Amino acid sequence: MPSRYRAQLVNSLSGFKSANLIATCNADGQTNVAIFSSVVHLGASPALVGFVMRPNNVARHTLENIKQTKQYTINQVSESFWLKAHQTSARYVAQESEFDLCGLSSRYYEGIDAPFVNESQLQYALTLKEIIPIELNNTLLVIGEVTDVFCQNMAIKPDGYIDIESLNTVSISGLDSYHVSRRLSRLSYAKPERSVQRIPVNGQNELSDL
Amino acid sequence: MPSRYRAQLVNSLSGFKSANLIATCNADGQTNVAIFSSVVHLGASPALVGFVMRPNNVARHTLENIKQTKQYTINQVSESFWLKAHQTSARYVAQESEFDLCGLSSRYYEGIDAPFVNESQLQYALTLKEIIPIELNNTLLVIGEVTDVFCQNMAIKPDGYIDIESLNTVSISGLDSYHVSRRLSRLSYAKPERSVQRIPVNGQNELSDL
Repeated sequence: MPSRYRAQLVNSLSGFKSANLIATCNADGQTNVAIFSSVVHLGASPALVGFVMRPNNVARHTLENIKQTKQYTINQVSESFWLKAHQTSARYVAQESEFDLCGLSSRYYEGIDAPFVNESQLQYALTLKEIIPIELNNTLLVIGEVTDVFCQNMAIKPDGYIDIESLNTVSISGLDSYHVSRRLSRLSYAKPERSVQRIPVNGQNELSDL
Repeated sequence: MPSRYRAQLVNSLSGFKSANLIATCNADGQTNVAIFSSVVHLGASPALVGFVMRPNNVARHTLENIKQTKQYTINQVSESFWLKAHQTSARYVAQESEFDLCGLSSRYYEGIDAPFVNESQLQYALTLKEIIPIELNNTLLVIGEVTDVFCQNMAIKPDGYIDIESLNTVSISGLDSYHVSRRLSRLSYAKPERSVQRIPVNGQNELSDL
């Protein structure tokens, strides 16, 4: 297969991917923000989130900054700024900030040096815990522990579920396709002896058969 | 935070997650299939796909089988069988097959011992390449190389992009919410000197401004 064809095809296999902006700054305060489709949940306790990157691609400034400051933020991409988010994947030089160049605004919270993406409706800060090299293809799994979450209370349901559909969070398929979502349902915890049931978005125990 | 609340909240942070059934068999041919929301693209050349698992959870039969046979299949979950797919997360015993118990049918292709999920519109086989332990929380990153892809030709576009929306592939948010998608657009490769443009789903070079 030609390499670009292969890249499109293989990138389509894993299914829908999360769309997130990772924002960092270096020791001098120079900011950087880049889109990633490989952010993955690793565990709730401790709260660990990972993402995969190539050391030599456009996102290398992200990696350098995380190594310097041990801190970064992840910001879910929503329908209101998906085009600007995609533009961050262009190869800008390190002295330029994608915040300015892509029309995004940074926001800071007390006690956290790394910038957040102000346009994002679900933002969180992480402390670097480990960078695991994947030698098979020279990529890295960067793992951080979540320290602070910023999200409007309305989206957080009584059982802890965050209704990211109500935040208009987008997903990615392949390398370059963006999608919004329509919920089928939340489902009850599956047990061997009974069929799954719908639960309401708020997570309350009003089960209904399907 | 109470642990179930925390699990719901932290599982919502990474954004939309892929919904895939991983199917395996042991050396005796006993089949197993389980849903995973942590399948992640690692690289196109070689074609590597990873997924994260806890060694001790319900999916341990999946891990044991992969270690025994070095082979497994990943099958995208679509709207036509999302309920059955969710039911596979119940704690069945190893001697029972989720295929039978959840109403899913297995399918085999010549030369591949692991079963596929017949209901899935995008199926592929992998050979185990590496299991990387993540010591921070005792999880494992299981990495396989894609050997065979099965998908209707209509969904594969001329540039290699697979239109998984046309296959009604679903995504997951949090622990238990399922979603279908609506495409915003595919976008052109981002370059510093120009704004991104829409490209048609078939990937042809008919750019249009946004």
